[in-house]
Amino acid sequence: MKAWENNIRQVVPYVPGEQPRRPVIKLNTNENPYPPAPGVQAAVREMDPDCLRLYPDPDCTGLCTEIAAVYGVEKENVFVGVGSDDVLATAFLTFFNSGKPVLFPDITYSFYRVWADVYRIPYETVPVDKDFRLHAEDYYKENGGVIFANPNAPTAICEPLSFVEDILEHNRDVIVIADEAYVDFGGESAVSLLDKYDNLLVVQTFSKSRSMAGSRIGYALGGQALIRSMENVKFSINSYTMNQYSLKTGVEAIRDRQYFEDTLAKIIRTRETSKKRLEEMGFFCTDSKTNFLFVSHKSRNAKEIFEALKERDIYVRYFNTPGIDNYLRITVGTDEEMDIFFRAVEEILK
Amino acid sequence: MKAWENNIRQVVPYVPGEQPRRPVIKLNTNENPYPPAPGVQAAVREMDPDCLRLYPDPDCTGLCTEIAAVYGVEKENVFVGVGSDDVLATAFLTFFNSGKPVLFPDITYSFYRVWADVYRIPYETVPVDKDFRLHAEDYYKENGGVIFANPNAPTAICEPLSFVEDILEHNRDVIVIADEAYVDFGGESAVSLLDKYDNLLVVQTFSKSRSMAGSRIGYALGGQALIRSMENVKFSINSYTMNQYSLKTGVEAIRDRQYFEDTLAKIIRTRETSKKRLEEMGFFCTDSKTNFLFVSHKSRNAKEIFEALKERDIYVRYFNTPGIDNYLRITVGTDEEMDIFFRAVEEILK
Repeated sequence: MKAWENNIRQVVPYVPGEQPRRPVIKLNTNENPYPPAPGVQAAVREMDPDCLRLYPDPDCTGLCTEIAAVYGVEKENVFVGVGSDDVLATAFLTFFNSGKPVLFPDITYSFYRVWADVYRIPYETVPVDKDFRLHAEDYYKENGGVIFANPNAPTAICEPLSFVEDILEHNRDVIVIADEAYVDFGGESAVSLLDKYDNLLVVQTFSKSRSMAGSRIGYALGGQALIRSMENVKFSINSYTMNQYSLKTGVEAIRDRQYFEDTLAKIIRTRETSKKRLEEMGFFCTDSKTNFLFVSHKSRNAKEIFEALKERDIYVRYFNTPGIDNYLRITVGTDEEMDIFFRAVEEILK
Repeated sequence: MKAWENNIRQVVPYVPGEQPRRPVIKLNTNENPYPPAPGVQAAVREMDPDCLRLYPDPDCTGLCTEIAAVYGVEKENVFVGVGSDDVLATAFLTFFNSGKPVLFPDITYSFYRVWADVYRIPYETVPVDKDFRLHAEDYYKENGGVIFANPNAPTAICEPLSFVEDILEHNRDVIVIADEAYVDFGGESAVSLLDKYDNLLVVQTFSKSRSMAGSRIGYALGGQALIRSMENVKFSINSYTMNQYSLKTGVEAIRDRQYFEDTLAKIIRTRETSKKRLEEMGFFCTDSKTNFLFVSHKSRNAKEIFEALKERDIYVRYFNTPGIDNYLRITVGTDEEMDIFFRAVEEILK
């Protein structure tokens, strides 16, 4: 072993869902089955490649202004990053420096513990109940910050706004992060609480509801003190995180409210019909407020179904994690994709 | 003061050069005055916006393979990130964990001390000599790692390969980073030393010599153990750093060797004629192996020239830093831009 090897940061990285290169029915990474808004397509086609030789606007003024307009806040209340993972990682590094453990549910987005580990932030996981529900009183104890996904992943369940406010009421001295990656699909957003709580950070993304996973745009909404602190950390790591393409297409993606609403309605409709079909086939489904279904079959093993689907080139997500290891997370695709999925499931269950 | 404010990470961020929004002669952030390769322009125009709804390849396989081919290494020897700043920040976090001070020159890219600060890495700066030269023996002492820019910024001076090898010979137990952002403009790259030293990391960028500052692509070349460690840290922060556009256009930008060589030749030619003109006007210029000139006038104050140029909508870079506060850093533009610049300088010096 070389001496320098001793000083390499030891980590256990997050493992993202597979990105298969050949055509498959891809219901494994919660992408949107519909293309981005027509304005995005126009922006790509009309882009002057000469702008690529110049550094992008480090303050992302245009994109922040457009996001701020949607939520009725100022651009100084908006932080943008390379997907919500970048935004959340920056928030961990910026806010969780007390040395006390950060609290998050034991079943949630598995990146939370990875960020805590990579930045050497202590944390404590809080068990969800047997129905995967979160209880605010479990977050009353002393801590270095609180983060939860709402709706939660991979359970798809959304807690009401009263839950978020309860947590905020009991955690005035730390930063509370509501990770709302999936909120547009029927959840209740904590954005309305921003005026009341200056320690609240709400994180959202263009990757799901705006069909822009490939563009890498996430954002945080919060009080100006929080956003300024995150900007300072960002400008201490990489001044230019958002490239010219994402700045230009991002503006178009968030501007088109009608396309956004129409796409959401289609996905929610497909989600509800798919849920019904799954239940008829003997699956238990949580009450999803996301673009995926979290399901478990009453008699058949989840991992076996996952593998049988994969053999048929249908990708869903399986987590080999205690408590959810008999569940599948199935992204809501188009009706056509779901039909192919259901034919395969029928065959597998036969 | 709120309790949560105590636990915000305190930093002094890097201040990037201005990105003015109205048309100016922009010689302040070392961008390439020529557009990216024609293949990049075609890739942008032909891009299917539907791919934006999907996550990009987290392993950046296509881009890493193409970069590896240029240097005759394997794709496992290549790490890509959102500009070389992202790559360097990741390297700091990955490798500089010994608790001993990292060494770098006192006059160099000012982001080094910012990364050290944000990640709480101790560091010690090593004075350059009166001619801004670096001396390997100054880096023999015990340390937690070594990083230098070669060519150095903002001095534009390139140390010979023997300097890099001397540092490597005397620093076997730590990671040595050669930051070669400007090396394509006439410097001597340490890539040839990679086979011999498994603790060497060479970092380069698409932002300067490949006219892709707006695309945010940087890369590191190194032994597989180093690259794997950086990948692990990357996958512990953000799995998908490179968006679909930069992956696709990046491949085209690095593939076109002829365009690359032609662009470099033009810039080097303009640099040398500009240097001669500056010297005739009473400026001292270092021996630049970069796409910028580092200059000081024998009798006129640098800051005053900087401000007088700015009034005329000509932007160059001025650093209010002891030791270089009577110097200007002037990016090499097109011949036409330089003519406008020189007319203004003549006027100012009158």
